[in-house]
Amino acid sequence: MAKKKKEAPITGITVSKEEDFSAWYTELINKAELADIRYNIKGFVVYREWATITIRKMYKKYEDLLDKKGHLPLTMPSLIPESNFLLEADHVKGFSPEVFWVTEAGTSGKLPERLALRPTSETALYKMYSLWIRSYKDLPFKRYLSCQVWRYEGKMTRPFFRGREFHWIESHNVFATMEDAMEQVKEDMETTYQMLQDECCIPLIFFERPQWDKFSGAEKTFAADALMGSGKVLQLPSTHLLGQKFSIPFDVKFVDTDGKEKYGYQTCYGPAQSRNYGAMIAYLGDDNGLVLPFDLAPIQIVIIPILFKGKEEPILAKAKVIFEILKKKYSVKIDDSDESAGSKFYYWELRGVPIRIEIGPREIEKEQLVLIKRHDSKKFIMKEKDLEKKVNEIAQNYTKEIKKKSLIDFESQIELCYEKDAAIEAINNGKIVCCGFCSIDMDAYHCAEVVEKEIGGFVRGKRVDEEKHEFATCLICGKPAGCTVYIAKSY
Amino acid sequence: MAKKKKEAPITGITVSKEEDFSAWYTELINKAELADIRYNIKGFVVYREWATITIRKMYKKYEDLLDKKGHLPLTMPSLIPESNFLLEADHVKGFSPEVFWVTEAGTSGKLPERLALRPTSETALYKMYSLWIRSYKDLPFKRYLSCQVWRYEGKMTRPFFRGREFHWIESHNVFATMEDAMEQVKEDMETTYQMLQDECCIPLIFFERPQWDKFSGAEKTFAADALMGSGKVLQLPSTHLLGQKFSIPFDVKFVDTDGKEKYGYQTCYGPAQSRNYGAMIAYLGDDNGLVLPFDLAPIQIVIIPILFKGKEEPILAKAKVIFEILKKKYSVKIDDSDESAGSKFYYWELRGVPIRIEIGPREIEKEQLVLIKRHDSKKFIMKEKDLEKKVNEIAQNYTKEIKKKSLIDFESQIELCYEKDAAIEAINNGKIVCCGFCSIDMDAYHCAEVVEKEIGGFVRGKRVDEEKHEFATCLICGKPAGCTVYIAKSY
Repeated sequence: MAKKKKEAPITGITVSKEEDFSAWYTELINKAELADIRYNIKGFVVYREWATITIRKMYKKYEDLLDKKGHLPLTMPSLIPESNFLLEADHVKGFSPEVFWVTEAGTSGKLPERLALRPTSETALYKMYSLWIRSYKDLPFKRYLSCQVWRYEGKMTRPFFRGREFHWIESHNVFATMEDAMEQVKEDMETTYQMLQDECCIPLIFFERPQWDKFSGAEKTFAADALMGSGKVLQLPSTHLLGQKFSIPFDVKFVDTDGKEKYGYQTCYGPAQSRNYGAMIAYLGDDNGLVLPFDLAPIQIVIIPILFKGKEEPILAKAKVIFEILKKKYSVKIDDSDESAGSKFYYWELRGVPIRIEIGPREIEKEQLVLIKRHDSKKFIMKEKDLEKKVNEIAQNYTKEIKKKSLIDFESQIELCYEKDAAIEAINNGKIVCCGFCSIDMDAYHCAEVVEKEIGGFVRGKRVDEEKHEFATCLICGKPAGCTVYIAKSY
Repeated sequence: MAKKKKEAPITGITVSKEEDFSAWYTELINKAELADIRYNIKGFVVYREWATITIRKMYKKYEDLLDKKGHLPLTMPSLIPESNFLLEADHVKGFSPEVFWVTEAGTSGKLPERLALRPTSETALYKMYSLWIRSYKDLPFKRYLSCQVWRYEGKMTRPFFRGREFHWIESHNVFATMEDAMEQVKEDMETTYQMLQDECCIPLIFFERPQWDKFSGAEKTFAADALMGSGKVLQLPSTHLLGQKFSIPFDVKFVDTDGKEKYGYQTCYGPAQSRNYGAMIAYLGDDNGLVLPFDLAPIQIVIIPILFKGKEEPILAKAKVIFEILKKKYSVKIDDSDESAGSKFYYWELRGVPIRIEIGPREIEKEQLVLIKRHDSKKFIMKEKDLEKKVNEIAQNYTKEIKKKSLIDFESQIELCYEKDAAIEAINNGKIVCCGFCSIDMDAYHCAEVVEKEIGGFVRGKRVDEEKHEFATCLICGKPAGCTVYIAKSY
């Protein structure tokens, strides 16, 4: 997807994405002013204007999708009493190393109980659910929070990909039966595809995670891995079948149609909006900077008057006329700053504005306009009267075009491996390994440790859509294979 | 505004707003399920679905207004290092008693530095501003955050009015001159009127607060007091002229057109969305429950099929037809639950749904529809073909009608007082006192203390719009009056 860098203007990115993804990403973040890592707490960054606007648009789309599917929003306190937190044993074990604690307040000193900055909201919410849910009539009970969470990350942080404070949606649902809960998990996976694959153009595949890699407190975890096209994957939203693991300790009960009191079956789902943003810009961006889906661009069309001394007036007037026409439907900006036309081109390319319209003396003379599409650099010259139609056409197809160009076929990324050495080579060659494995239950954990240590990848789990490959034996121990799994490096 | 309660169905409110505002408000919150105070940390509440949806709509409107006026959004970490916090002396003095401190994380125990849960973001943001702002070309620099803040409140909390975690917008701006900064303060006041008076129908008046009541670290504070119609006021958004009080310690400098480096002039503005919501529902609500502006209602139209055994089918079919027509433009719901028609009426009245459409056997027979407006209970009977037009008409006028009915004339609320005893009586009679005062500078603080202690009200400050009244002497000490002030009780 990346192409070699031909020239490196001062305002542009100087590293090729293909050659050094990590350096490229850092430059993109800095030069397009998406985040500032200089905030003086380790692991905490500022999301700047351009990123904040797109993330806000992503929230709106995600919330609309959830609303349509019968979820309702709630607002929860961000502090959780330690006593709540301790109620589910696996959960506390999993999250304890990551919790920030509020212990003091005001001038009165120590608080009577430590308060956790929510790392996730199960233990805050489900206490309330036990008060709110009474009868089968209240089910399904589907709610979500749009909020931020804090985690004292041990791993290296990177803006949007991983930070100690990040912004997400968490959806928490209660059902009368395990089957209904499992249907919700499926709906969540569908929602993920709708948002991240259709709207953000990120290719995904869902895996059922191995038991040793599930959400702390879940029965099962299903997670989307973004295919980054380099063999390395990035975990995006995951949805968890909690079953009754929380409803019992948190007393989330309902009176069923038969008059009996029963514990609910729960699911939770956590699309991290900041990470989705990071994945999107990392995946779609090129050596000129950001590429953004049309709906998610803070500015969709930039008009650049190319000014020559003495000829400014008709050019600026024309720019203004076009601005007035287009702003009715789109987010438009005229860049009439003092910078050179070239600098303006680089500036807005770097920021991923989908459409650039140029108006110079020649355009005035010939009564025409020049239009350039960001994602494929295609140039169109047209009469002014044809502009609106052309813009509408581009607006309608822009995201679809990116998606078509960007979506990777999962099958083309994998290599079937029957032996450990082949798997090591495949991983080193930037492939995802597909192989036989004992199982994804805890008793296969020793084989997974070997994978991590010797192959240098992680068992991502069993694919959720149709499995096309079958193996006789486990790649590691050679015993009869219980399932097919995929092994990949991850960000 | 409130009327006597005639009947009290189980689902309705049993206390008259006029007789006992406080008990009425508590019932409204509980019965309309707007907030839940049972969350197990003192002063922290859950905002439930119905409130969250309206607050989200309020955010959208406020953000759109700010965007239009040239502000851009940012996302800041919610933790602030103690060392930042200590940079501005007045600020730290004012906020120290209210800060929650994060001191521990994970299993590694104590953090090297205490981290404040932001009570407000000046000390986080302005460190970044000093990195971002370089030249006069960067000014005006207008940004805002949509976020929550935490304050260890000593005062009694009440859902939405005052809590230890609340949701607001904070706008932080930098200008080249004090005059530009003061223009921003005026713009903020205008924005407040546009949002809170025009959209939320809350009558407001802006006061320049006395020096002893200004924002910690500001030169001057201008705050909107909502006129609650009982002599008691509620402070809503305030905007602060910070001048150079933060730009100097935080090093927010720019190179001016003359090539010289100068400190910027700053303002900040903090509309608390949760409190605005509280003020709105408290002010507009009546003894049947919520009254909401049309745009801010989570559901704008509820269709209630009145079902009789054996006659359900044509009624439900008609409801569905109407639903399909109206849902193109409005947020509509059919309530086809098992509850009685009467219970449904109460339920949706309580939640302030602006339009109720009833369809029963008679409506089918006569080919007509019954429509009821929530805020004035006006009933309309019409042919189905006229429905859409009628709904559009109501939708367009509903908020204006509430506003017309609700806005109180400030002059009618005040009583001119020339002596302390008259002021005491006026305050006890639910009036706002207008009187002469030494000044609103610190040297008048001793007079303000007398006001608080003996009159039982607070000096709200000098009104910002045109002052209509003049006094010869200070109400308290009898010395020549420096200005006219207003004294009121406050929530």
